[in-house]
Amino acid sequence: MKLWDKGISIDKQIEKFTVGNDRELDMHLAEYDIQASKAHAKMLGKIGILNNAEVEALLSELDKLKGQLEKGEFHIEEDFEDVHSKIEFELTKKLGDTGKKIHTARSRNDQVLVAQQLYFKNNLQQISGKTKALIDVLLGLADEHKEKLLPGYTHLQVAMPSSFGLWFSAYAELLIDDLYLLDAGLKIVDQNPLGSAAGYGSSFPIDREFTTQELGFSTQKFNVVAAQMSRGKCERTVTSNIASLANTLSRFAMDICLYMSQNFDFITFPDELTTGSSIMPHKKNPDVFELIRGKCNKLQAIANEMILITNNLPSGYHRDFQLIKENSIYAVENIKEILDVFTHSIAQIKVKEVDLKDEKYKYLFTVDSINELVLQGKSFRDAYKIIGEQIQNGKYEATEGMQHSHSGSKDNLSLNMIKNKLQQL
Amino acid sequence: MKLWDKGISIDKQIEKFTVGNDRELDMHLAEYDIQASKAHAKMLGKIGILNNAEVEALLSELDKLKGQLEKGEFHIEEDFEDVHSKIEFELTKKLGDTGKKIHTARSRNDQVLVAQQLYFKNNLQQISGKTKALIDVLLGLADEHKEKLLPGYTHLQVAMPSSFGLWFSAYAELLIDDLYLLDAGLKIVDQNPLGSAAGYGSSFPIDREFTTQELGFSTQKFNVVAAQMSRGKCERTVTSNIASLANTLSRFAMDICLYMSQNFDFITFPDELTTGSSIMPHKKNPDVFELIRGKCNKLQAIANEMILITNNLPSGYHRDFQLIKENSIYAVENIKEILDVFTHSIAQIKVKEVDLKDEKYKYLFTVDSINELVLQGKSFRDAYKIIGEQIQNGKYEATEGMQHSHSGSKDNLSLNMIKNKLQQL
Amino acid sequence: MKLWDKGISIDKQIEKFTVGNDRELDMHLAEYDIQASKAHAKMLGKIGILNNAEVEALLSELDKLKGQLEKGEFHIEEDFEDVHSKIEFELTKKLGDTGKKIHTARSRNDQVLVAQQLYFKNNLQQISGKTKALIDVLLGLADEHKEKLLPGYTHLQVAMPSSFGLWFSAYAELLIDDLYLLDAGLKIVDQNPLGSAAGYGSSFPIDREFTTQELGFSTQKFNVVAAQMSRGKCERTVTSNIASLANTLSRFAMDICLYMSQNFDFITFPDELTTGSSIMPHKKNPDVFELIRGKCNKLQAIANEMILITNNLPSGYHRDFQLIKENSIYAVENIKEILDVFTHSIAQIKVKEVDLKDEKYKYLFTVDSINELVLQGKSFRDAYKIIGEQIQNGKYEATEGMQHSHSGSKDNLSLNMIKNKLQQL
Amino acid sequence: MKLWDKGISIDKQIEKFTVGNDRELDMHLAEYDIQASKAHAKMLGKIGILNNAEVEALLSELDKLKGQLEKGEFHIEEDFEDVHSKIEFELTKKLGDTGKKIHTARSRNDQVLVAQQLYFKNNLQQISGKTKALIDVLLGLADEHKEKLLPGYTHLQVAMPSSFGLWFSAYAELLIDDLYLLDAGLKIVDQNPLGSAAGYGSSFPIDREFTTQELGFSTQKFNVVAAQMSRGKCERTVTSNIASLANTLSRFAMDICLYMSQNFDFITFPDELTTGSSIMPHKKNPDVFELIRGKCNKLQAIANEMILITNNLPSGYHRDFQLIKENSIYAVENIKEILDVFTHSIAQIKVKEVDLKDEKYKYLFTVDSINELVLQGKSFRDAYKIIGEQIQNGKYEATEGMQHSHSGSKDNLSLNMIKNKLQQL
Repeated sequence: MKLWDKGISIDKQIEKFTVGNDRELDMHLAEYDIQASKAHAKMLGKIGILNNAEVEALLSELDKLKGQLEKGEFHIEEDFEDVHSKIEFELTKKLGDTGKKIHTARSRNDQVLVAQQLYFKNNLQQISGKTKALIDVLLGLADEHKEKLLPGYTHLQVAMPSSFGLWFSAYAELLIDDLYLLDAGLKIVDQNPLGSAAGYGSSFPIDREFTTQELGFSTQKFNVVAAQMSRGKCERTVTSNIASLANTLSRFAMDICLYMSQNFDFITFPDELTTGSSIMPHKKNPDVFELIRGKCNKLQAIANEMILITNNLPSGYHRDFQLIKENSIYAVENIKEILDVFTHSIAQIKVKEVDLKDEKYKYLFTVDSINELVLQGKSFRDAYKIIGEQIQNGKYEATEGMQHSHSGSKDNLSLNMIKNKLQQL
Repeated sequence: MKLWDKGISIDKQIEKFTVGNDRELDMHLAEYDIQASKAHAKMLGKIGILNNAEVEALLSELDKLKGQLEKGEFHIEEDFEDVHSKIEFELTKKLGDTGKKIHTARSRNDQVLVAQQLYFKNNLQQISGKTKALIDVLLGLADEHKEKLLPGYTHLQVAMPSSFGLWFSAYAELLIDDLYLLDAGLKIVDQNPLGSAAGYGSSFPIDREFTTQELGFSTQKFNVVAAQMSRGKCERTVTSNIASLANTLSRFAMDICLYMSQNFDFITFPDELTTGSSIMPHKKNPDVFELIRGKCNKLQAIANEMILITNNLPSGYHRDFQLIKENSIYAVENIKEILDVFTHSIAQIKVKEVDLKDEKYKYLFTVDSINELVLQGKSFRDAYKIIGEQIQNGKYEATEGMQHSHSGSKDNLSLNMIKNKLQQL
Repeated sequence: MKLWDKGISIDKQIEKFTVGNDRELDMHLAEYDIQASKAHAKMLGKIGILNNAEVEALLSELDKLKGQLEKGEFHIEEDFEDVHSKIEFELTKKLGDTGKKIHTARSRNDQVLVAQQLYFKNNLQQISGKTKALIDVLLGLADEHKEKLLPGYTHLQVAMPSSFGLWFSAYAELLIDDLYLLDAGLKIVDQNPLGSAAGYGSSFPIDREFTTQELGFSTQKFNVVAAQMSRGKCERTVTSNIASLANTLSRFAMDICLYMSQNFDFITFPDELTTGSSIMPHKKNPDVFELIRGKCNKLQAIANEMILITNNLPSGYHRDFQLIKENSIYAVENIKEILDVFTHSIAQIKVKEVDLKDEKYKYLFTVDSINELVLQGKSFRDAYKIIGEQIQNGKYEATEGMQHSHSGSKDNLSLNMIKNKLQQL
Repeated sequence: MKLWDKGISIDKQIEKFTVGNDRELDMHLAEYDIQASKAHAKMLGKIGILNNAEVEALLSELDKLKGQLEKGEFHIEEDFEDVHSKIEFELTKKLGDTGKKIHTARSRNDQVLVAQQLYFKNNLQQISGKTKALIDVLLGLADEHKEKLLPGYTHLQVAMPSSFGLWFSAYAELLIDDLYLLDAGLKIVDQNPLGSAAGYGSSFPIDREFTTQELGFSTQKFNVVAAQMSRGKCERTVTSNIASLANTLSRFAMDICLYMSQNFDFITFPDELTTGSSIMPHKKNPDVFELIRGKCNKLQAIANEMILITNNLPSGYHRDFQLIKENSIYAVENIKEILDVFTHSIAQIKVKEVDLKDEKYKYLFTVDSINELVLQGKSFRDAYKIIGEQIQNGKYEATEGMQHSHSGSKDNLSLNMIKNKLQQL
C-alpha cells in the first residue's frame, strides 16, 4: 500500500529501485513515529478535528503497536513501502474511518522529519552519555598510571618525556570538545518540525505549540520551509558531529595499534581482545582497535555524502533526501557500538614498563638539560647551542628528567580541572 | 633564519618546498603572535625568568611591531620562514640577549597554536556577527514581502502556495542553527594551549593560569598532549562549522539563480549586480550568486581536507599540520567576504509579482481544496480521492487559497519567535 | 570456525563487532573464491604439493559448491566469519586432510584479493556493457528528435538555441569518457595477486604464471608487497571510476527533473514512471530520476571513504581494509542497477513541443543576429554593440535562427563520429 | 576591460569578489591561449572570415606575445579580468578592427576550455614522465638493496621476512597503475572543444577538423553541449587521477617517516634532507617526507571539491565553473613539484643493516617453519598447530629463513617483468 496510490500499476523494477531499504531502516524510527502520531492525534482532538472517542481509539491502537514493537512483534511487511504506511494501515484496519483521519493536517514529509528528529535527539543524548562513560574510564586509567613514563614523539622521532597519565587524559580532554559539538547538534534537532506538512504548512488550524510540548521539544522550527529544509541539515549536522568524535577515537586507536607493535611495545591486551592469522601462529593482532580506527574513518566520510546528495538542490523536498536516511542512522548506530567496544576494551589495557634508559631514547631529556642551563642564567638560544654541540660531538650525557610543575604537565595532570569541564556541560 | 638552524646548508629546492606560503598566511596571525608573546613575556617576568626591565623592553618592542603591523609596515621577508622567526629576529636585533630569552619555556608548536586559536576565536565572533547582520536583513525582507505569494515546489513540481515572506525567513531561521555550531566551535578554540611547548610541556615553573587570563581565554586546554592535538581539531571544527553556514548560503544562492531564470522569473537584481556575456548582448547573469554558491561549495570541501591530512597519524606533532593552516585561514577569510557580499546583494533584491492564476500553477491549491472537504466532515483519505478524481477527469477548479493560521505558516510567519531565538544566543 | 582459531574463547561483543556483515557481502565473492581455489589447487598439483587424486577431489567438491551457489543453495551460516572459512570447512568435512591442504601456500589475504579482483574485473566489464547500451539508446533518441529545438541556457538564463538532438547525444559522448576510465580500472584489477600470501610471498615453489593463465588475468601483480597494497588501490580505483560515470548520470538526471518542472515543461514520462504525493493528488513526481540523481551522488562519496580508511597507514595489511569491501561492492551493484533503470526509463521519455516564440525565449537568437551582421562585414565586437543597443532600446526583433553547419552543432550532430569513438574502445 | 562590458559601472566590492585570482592563475594558461588563438585565426582565414593579411597580422602579434611570455615580460595588469581579455586588448591596440575580429565564432567559454585542455594535456604528459623517472630510481634502489632483509609487518605486528628490494620495487609497480589512470585522463582531455562557443555552437561555417589537427588533438569533442560540459569533467578527471598518484606517494612517505623513527631505525637521510626543532637540538626530522605525505593528502581532497562545485547543476555553463580552475591548476603544479622532490630525495636514502636476530623479530620465520613441516608431509593446518603450540610453550626456535623462488618474491624480484609493464605503456 502506498499513501499516494493513484491506482496505476507501477513498474516492478522501478518499485524495487524506489523503495530501497526503507523497511529495514524504519525499524529504528517506528517508536518515534508512534510517539509523534500520538501527539498529533491529541492535537487534532484539541482543535476539534477528531472527537474524544476517536482520539482515545487512536491512542489505544498506537499503544498496542508500541507494545508489539517492544516485544519484537512489530514487522514492516513487503507490502508497505515504509513504517508510516504500515502504521496508518494498521490503524485503518482496526478503526476504519478514524484510522484514515490520523493523516489529516500532516504530510509524510513532516511525519518523517519529526520521527527522525526525535530519534536523533534521543540518540545524541545516548552518545553523549557513552562518551562521558569513556572519559571516566580514561581519567581513571590516567590516574592509575600517572607515574609511568613514556617517550613522547614529534615527527615520529623521540622527542621529550611523556607519560601514560598524559596519554590517557589527553584523549579524555579532547573528547570533551566533541561533547560541545554534540550539544550544538542537540540544539539543532530539538526543534519541532511537525505541522510543516509538505514544507508549506497547512490550512488547518493546527496547534504546533501543543505538539511541541507534548513531544518534549525545546522549541519549534517555526518557519515551515525551514522545517522542511531541516531534512538534510539535521543529518549533516548529526553525522558531522559524530565524525568529530570518530576522529578522536580513530587517532587514539592508531596510537594503540602502533604502541602494540613489537617496535614500540608499550602496551598489550588480554588474548580475548586480539585475533590470530590464518598462516602465522604467533600473531596477536589488535583487530579490535584496527576496526575501531577503520569504522571511525568510515564515519568521517558520511557527512560529505550528505552534502553531495543535498547540495545545489533548490529549496523544497526532493526524493533524494530519502537516501540520506540510511547513513545517518548507520552513523548513529555505529558510533554507539564503537563507544561501547572502546570503553569495554580500553579498560582491559595492560601498560608495560618502558625502559627509558634504552639507547634509542637517549636524547629524550635534552630539553630538560637546556632548561637547567637556562635556570643557571644562560639565554635559551645559547643553552640550545651548547647542548646541540654536545650532541654533535657525542658528548651529551642524558640526565634524569626534571619534575614538571605546571598545569596539565606529566607531573601535574590537572585531572580535577578536566573533570570540572565535564561537569559544566 | 630558522629557529632550528644547525649550521648545515639545506638543499634549495627542499627549502622552497618546506617553507611553502607561510610568509603570506602568517600575516593573518602576526597580530595574535604579538599578543601572545606579550602575555608570555609578562608571565616569564612573573615567575622570575625575566626581570622587570627585560619584560618592559620586550613589551615595548612588541608594541612597536604591532604599530608597524597596523600601519601596514610589517613585512615577513624572504629570509624568514614564518612570522615567529621574524618577530624573534626583530626582538633579538633590538634587545640582544633579552630578545633571545622570549622563546624560553615555549616551543614553536604552542606559539603557533596559541596564535591560531586567538585568530579563530576573534574571527568566529566576527563571523557570527556578520551572520546575525544577514539574518536581520532577511527578517526585514520577509516582513516587507510577507503578503506576496510564490508557488511552493516539491520535487521541482508545483505543489502548494508559499510566499516571499516564508522564503526569506526560512533562511533566517536556518542560519540560527549555523550559529549554534559556530558557538560550539568558539568553545573549542577558547582554551589556552600556551605552555604545552612541543606537546609535552615544560620543566620551567610556568604559570598557565596567568597567560589564560591575560589572553582572555575562558579556560586552559590543560593536558599538554591534548593541547598539541588541538592542532588539527581546531581547524577541522572551524572549517566544518563554516561549511555548515556555507551550505545554507549555497542553497539560498541556488534558489536565487533558479528564480532569476526566465522560466521562473520571480526576482531580479539591479544591473550593477549582474554581468554580461562575451557573445550574448542580452545576458544579465547572476554571477554574484553563482560565485557565492560555488565558493560556498568549495568551503564545504575543506573540512575533508583537514581530515585527510591529519587522519591516522599517531599523536605528537607532524610537519603535515603546517599544511592545514592555509585552507583554514582561507575558509575564515572567505566566509567573511561571502557574508558581506551576500548581505550587500540580497538587500537589493527586487521581488516580482507572480501570477498564480497562470495555467502552470493551476493545481497549487489542491491541498486547500481537500482540507475544505475535510472541514466539511470527510476523512482526509476520502477527500484526497475526490479531488484526485476531479483532477484526472479535468474537472478540478482551482479555488482561492485558504488562510493559514498556525505558527510559521505563510499567513503567520512568527518572525518575533525567530528573533527571540536569535536573542537567546 | 575461524581459520586462525587459537582455542581461546573470544569476547562475544567483540566477535560481533569484528565479523561485521562479511557473511552477506561475501555472497558476491563466493563464485570467484571457488574459481580461484580451483586454480590454486591445480597449481599445487602441478608443483607436486598435491597429488592428482587430491587435486581431482578438490576440483570436484569445489564444482559441487559452485552448483549449489547457482541453485541458490549455498549459504554462509553464522558459524563462519566469511566465505573463505565456509568453503575450507566444506572441503575438509568432505575430504578430510585433503581439504585442509588447499590453504597451503596461500593466505586469507591473497585469497580475498584474488576473489575481489576477479569480481571487479567481471563487473567492470558488465558496467561497460551496460553503459554502451545506454549510449545506444541515447544516440537513437538524439537521431529521432534531432529536429526539435530547445532553449539552451547558460547561468540558467535563456542563451542560444539548442535541441533535443544535442541534449541526448551530449550525454552519450560524455559517457564515452567514463568508459576510458573504466578501461583503466580494468587494467589495474586485471593483474593476478594470488601467491602474495600475507603480503610477503611464500617459501613454497609456487607457479604464479600458471594461476595467472588459469584465471585469465592479463598479467601478474609481480611484487608481493605491491599485490597486497592493491587491496585499497583496487577499491579506490573502481569506486572512483564508477563515481565518474555516476557524475554524468547525476547531472543528466538533474536536467530531467528540471525539464519536467511545469516552469520548463520540455519532457514528460508515462504515469508508470512517476509517483504521487501523500497529500497532493495532482502530483506526478520524477522520483525515479531524483533517486538516480541521489544514488549517483551517494556513489560519488564512496571513493573518499576508501581514501579515509586506507590513508596514512604504513604498508602491510591492516584489518581496516576489511571495511572497504562493503562500499566497493555496494558501488558496483548499485551502478549496475542504476544503469538498467536509467536505460529502461529514458527510453520511455516523451519529448514535448517547445514554443520558442514565447516571450521568455525572445533573445534566444541574438547571437545569430550578431553573426549575420558579421557575415555582412562588421567586426564581431561592433556587431555585438549594435545588437546590444537594440535590446536595451527595446528595438530588437528576433529573427529565425540560422542553420549551424559545423561538426557537433545542432544541425549537424556528428552522431557517426561519436559512434566511431565508441567502436574504437 | 571586460569582454561583456555594457557600460554600466559595477559595484567595486562585487568586482573584486567576481574576478578572484584569475589573473594569477591565467599565467599558467597564457601560452595555451596564444596557441589556440593562432589556430583559430588560421581557421577563420581558411573559411574566409579573415583575409590573409589579417591572419598574418594576428599570427605575428600573437607570436610577439608568446615571445614576451617566454622572456617573463608578459603580465596581466589589474585592468583585465583574465588572460583572454588581456590578449584581445593587446591585439586590438596593435591591429584595430583586425584585433576585434579574432573573437568571431568563439566564446570565452570555448576559449577557456581549449586553453585548459591543452594545459592539462601537456602537463599530464609531463607528470607521466616524472613518474617514470621516479620508477626508474626505485627499480635501481630495489636492485641495489635486493639482498638486505627487512621485517615485514601485518597489523603493524612483526609478521614475515621482507626486504628493501621488495619495498622499493613495490612502490615502483604500484606507480605503474597510476600511469594507467593518467593515460585515461589524457584521452579525456585530448579532444578539441574549440568551436563549441558558449556551449551551443556557432552559426558561422567554422572548420573544427582544421583546428583539431592544428592543435594536435587526437579527436574532437564533437557535441557542443558535451564540449561545454567537459568543463568540470576534465578537472575532476585530472585531479582524481593525480589523487591516485598522490595516494601511492603518500603511503610511501608514511613508511619512510615510520622507518626513520628510532623505534624502527631502518633508514636515514643526509642532514641536508632533515630539519631541526626550535627547542630540541638533537632532532633530525623527516620534514620533507612529512610534507610530501601532507601535500599528497591535500591533493586527494581536491577531486571532491570539483564534485561539490559542479554537482547537481543542470547542463549549460555556470559561473561556478570558474572556481575549479584554481585547484585543478594547483594539483597539476603541486604534483610535479612533489615528484621532483621525491625523486631527488629518495635517491639519497641510506639503508641500514637491520638485525633480524633481535628478540623482537623472533617469530619472523614461523611461516617458513610451518612450510618446512608441510614439505615433510604434514597438512598445512596441522603444521600450523604444531608451530603454534611451540610458540605458546616458549619452545619455538627461529630457523634461518628459506629462499623464496616464485615471481615477485624477496629472492626473485621480477624487476624485468615490472620494467616490461612500463615499456608497454
